[in-house]
Amino acid sequence: MSKRIDFQTDPSKYRHWKVAYEGPVARLIMDVDEKGGLFEGYELKLNSYDLSVDIELADIVQRMRFEHPEVGAVVLQSGKDRVFCAGANIRMLGGATHAHKVNFCKFTNETRNTYEAAGAESGQSYICAVRGSCAGGGYELALACDHIILTDDSSSAVALPEVPLLAVLPGTGGLTRVTDKRKVRRDLADVFCAMEEGVRGKKAKDWRLVDEVVANSKFDETVTERAKEFAERNAAGKPAKGIALTPLDRTFGEDSITYSSVEVIIERSKGVATIVLSGPDGDVPSSMEELAVEGAGNWMLRLARELDDAILHLRLNELEVGVLVFKSQGDPEKVAAFEAFMLENREFWLAREILLYWKRVLKRVDVTSRSLVALVENGSCFAGFLAELLFAVDRSYMMDGEFEGDNRPMATITLTDGNFGPYPMANDLTRLQTRFLGEPERVDAAKARIGEALEAEDADELGLVTFAHDDIDWEDEIRIFLEERASFSPDAMTGMEANLRFAGPETMETRIFGRLTAWQNWIFQRPNAVGENGALQRYGTGLRGEYDMKRV
Amino acid sequence: MSKRIDFQTDPSKYRHWKVAYEGPVARLIMDVDEKGGLFEGYELKLNSYDLSVDIELADIVQRMRFEHPEVGAVVLQSGKDRVFCAGANIRMLGGATHAHKVNFCKFTNETRNTYEAAGAESGQSYICAVRGSCAGGGYELALACDHIILTDDSSSAVALPEVPLLAVLPGTGGLTRVTDKRKVRRDLADVFCAMEEGVRGKKAKDWRLVDEVVANSKFDETVTERAKEFAERNAAGKPAKGIALTPLDRTFGEDSITYSSVEVIIERSKGVATIVLSGPDGDVPSSMEELAVEGAGNWMLRLARELDDAILHLRLNELEVGVLVFKSQGDPEKVAAFEAFMLENREFWLAREILLYWKRVLKRVDVTSRSLVALVENGSCFAGFLAELLFAVDRSYMMDGEFEGDNRPMATITLTDGNFGPYPMANDLTRLQTRFLGEPERVDAAKARIGEALEAEDADELGLVTFAHDDIDWEDEIRIFLEERASFSPDAMTGMEANLRFAGPETMETRIFGRLTAWQNWIFQRPNAVGENGALQRYGTGLRGEYDMKRV
Repeated sequence: MSKRIDFQTDPSKYRHWKVAYEGPVARLIMDVDEKGGLFEGYELKLNSYDLSVDIELADIVQRMRFEHPEVGAVVLQSGKDRVFCAGANIRMLGGATHAHKVNFCKFTNETRNTYEAAGAESGQSYICAVRGSCAGGGYELALACDHIILTDDSSSAVALPEVPLLAVLPGTGGLTRVTDKRKVRRDLADVFCAMEEGVRGKKAKDWRLVDEVVANSKFDETVTERAKEFAERNAAGKPAKGIALTPLDRTFGEDSITYSSVEVIIERSKGVATIVLSGPDGDVPSSMEELAVEGAGNWMLRLARELDDAILHLRLNELEVGVLVFKSQGDPEKVAAFEAFMLENREFWLAREILLYWKRVLKRVDVTSRSLVALVENGSCFAGFLAELLFAVDRSYMMDGEFEGDNRPMATITLTDGNFGPYPMANDLTRLQTRFLGEPERVDAAKARIGEALEAEDADELGLVTFAHDDIDWEDEIRIFLEERASFSPDAMTGMEANLRFAGPETMETRIFGRLTAWQNWIFQRPNAVGENGALQRYGTGLRGEYDMKRV
Repeated sequence: MSKRIDFQTDPSKYRHWKVAYEGPVARLIMDVDEKGGLFEGYELKLNSYDLSVDIELADIVQRMRFEHPEVGAVVLQSGKDRVFCAGANIRMLGGATHAHKVNFCKFTNETRNTYEAAGAESGQSYICAVRGSCAGGGYELALACDHIILTDDSSSAVALPEVPLLAVLPGTGGLTRVTDKRKVRRDLADVFCAMEEGVRGKKAKDWRLVDEVVANSKFDETVTERAKEFAERNAAGKPAKGIALTPLDRTFGEDSITYSSVEVIIERSKGVATIVLSGPDGDVPSSMEELAVEGAGNWMLRLARELDDAILHLRLNELEVGVLVFKSQGDPEKVAAFEAFMLENREFWLAREILLYWKRVLKRVDVTSRSLVALVENGSCFAGFLAELLFAVDRSYMMDGEFEGDNRPMATITLTDGNFGPYPMANDLTRLQTRFLGEPERVDAAKARIGEALEAEDADELGLVTFAHDDIDWEDEIRIFLEERASFSPDAMTGMEANLRFAGPETMETRIFGRLTAWQNWIFQRPNAVGENGALQRYGTGLRGEYDMKRV
């Protein structure tokens, strides 16, 4: 599994999905190509999926928002005859490394969360039309939709058979959405999750597992009707057409990736990747029309796409890079002006979508299992949404005072309205609210300084950075920190960061990434699941897993 | 590690703690006997602890409430010269099985939660007086206290060095209490948890790690003063004397444990233990005075102590018992009458403490990593607090109608006021609220039936049981279920149950058992921590752990 996994795709390359547009309704048809898996050694039978299937789905969901903003309802359905979706491919899971399994689950979770949020945020509701068996990850695809319609025949059922069949959990939000979104009674959830065959017909509705059950003869008609209803409900203010998400400007070097506004430098021997974000290379659009014409060329959108791609690349392809260092260079006033333009015009769909995309990208940073650091250097442009990175990272360092031979502008941080609302974390708080949970008055103190270019002393005083160092200490402090971090057990860092990053209230999302993922990771290490005689290895051999029955 | 771990102890047997009573102030002095560990192969140096130390602490905290209700403030301090407490013993952890490590952490967590709740619930506040090094589990002991006083000298510091030193997490609530209780800023928490030496003096206060820092010369005086203040604040309504928690009436057989009101039958080949709770064997006390005279002989208190002990015994000593089956036999009206007496008289300290103890015992059931089942048979007495067990278990079965040759009274369930408030789960909801999260109107429907002896049809209709079966199906259904459950991977069951049991809001407590524990369990499986060259194995050899640097 050493080839590079690429998260960039486009409709001309899809192998597993078909998308049909009928005015405000889109049909999203899952028709997985058995031979189209990412790796050797397995076939994607019965609409089972691996990461390649999910990369396409994520691309579709993203393009739906930017390229097809006229769509108000998306019907998710199967292109196969007797099966909706059999879930994640078991042979793929059986053969994958622990790290790949975990990263695969994280990405699929992020994709589910993204289309789950599309209804409320962008007026694109997902409706799942289930005909045939809908099991495991298949049902998890459905659970993230706004509405699930199940056909009433003898073979169509929803199921989470992971526990009895595979000795692992339904790890793509399944358990959490059953209890917290669909609020299935816990003893019925226990019964449901312990049965291989799943639940069908009226019982599936009675147990709250689906929203409606429809006779086979009326299924297509009902699905079409429901899609129309959702689309009508979402119709207000829909634009007629979108913009094209053109291919990224991206070059891979041996130890680097160069995008138009993002540069990634990888130092493998140190376990460090530095991500340098460049400030605006052009002017703020003068009007919404101009923004629409710029389309994917707009700096703020471009930067989001490039950063998103860089993070995903590092997660999946650079496993030994334990530390991500964020830097920026550019004009902070221009950064703030770009963001202000979007915030002022958020009634306009494209401005809103760009802000929502930044919300998602920042969340992607939050749940990235690497130590995250920000360096606020001279010449940097951490303003507004870029300053959010300072509050997303595990710790930050800021240059304080003059640095010999450095004639870049003095390091500053500029807060904007963007730091007080539009990019909430998974816990539904802003990053500053989370940061100052113990001293909420500090959020107000920070708010009072909106628009100021805060130098190190002020930033430190306000609690916006972890450390401020002068010319004498800077290099040593950073070096020592990076060396120290690189010497720690990466597992302990992952566990620690997952616990420290999400103080405050919990949501379904924090639970999926915090609790469900942690338990699944544990099980993905246990011999009963992944050992030689474990259930994942034995799947398909006709033999059950051989279990050590000790309860832990 | 095959000797039986016994959770029963009393002050005459303590090896690690001294308790001194000075009126409303108790001094709890940790002075661990190096040679007093539970197992061979390690010495409990520097006030480090193993389960034996925690069993004594749990006993002290429990007796504080029942035997010394006059106490309003408990000072937790060290009996050693230069160290407060070095945390869990590393050699013990290095040598322990995965299951023992996990069970050890769970029990210590339960004990921390218990004394943390004692201030608000029972007017017994814990004050931690830290002199000397207070590291890892030592600081976690402090974090669960209501108030932490740190002496200001060059060697006294608080620290969580687990991550850098041992490649594991501070797993006894440390990370969660740092972020959620003390609300330490997350980047400072990152710095704090990544340093071996910890934080001392003023910085410890500034970072919110302790409540006050006091010059060494004024330390004793300040601690005494603070203890007096807390005791005065808690003084209202304190009784002059408590009751004695006399030894349990308990007999171990080969496959059974017999208590006065609890019988445990262990079928190891099936992986099942059946716990039969007997209803009242005497009358409801006629007055508070009579209750005080009964003391530990009171049925409701006795039953709590016996069930608590049985659960702990099964958790630690019967690892292959994957399913706990709860049954009861007795007069449900009498059960309800006992509970009503306590609820009516909860102004009286002893009645209140008995109810609070049931709250704790039921929570202990909730977080027990075994499949939990209840069988509501003819002749059973699931009323009020005993009916809570039906809502604590993963699923329940109820006898429906006449059973041939069975002349016991028909199976019924009786709801009382006890099912609607006094025994909340860790999520701060009642078990019925959690059960009916999706249909809250069902809680009201159940409430309207308080006091009725509900037979199977009604109980099923109200959603109080999972299945009701008649004479023809009963035995087969139960047998098939138990066989099926015994065939599943115990790890998958643990993960599934941990996710399904706690729907709804999260609290610090649910996070400790849900998120922190899951991550710690994962790390306790990772070679970087527990492998041959992992940090736990290498501890004390002068060599650091050798880590696979791949991030997961």
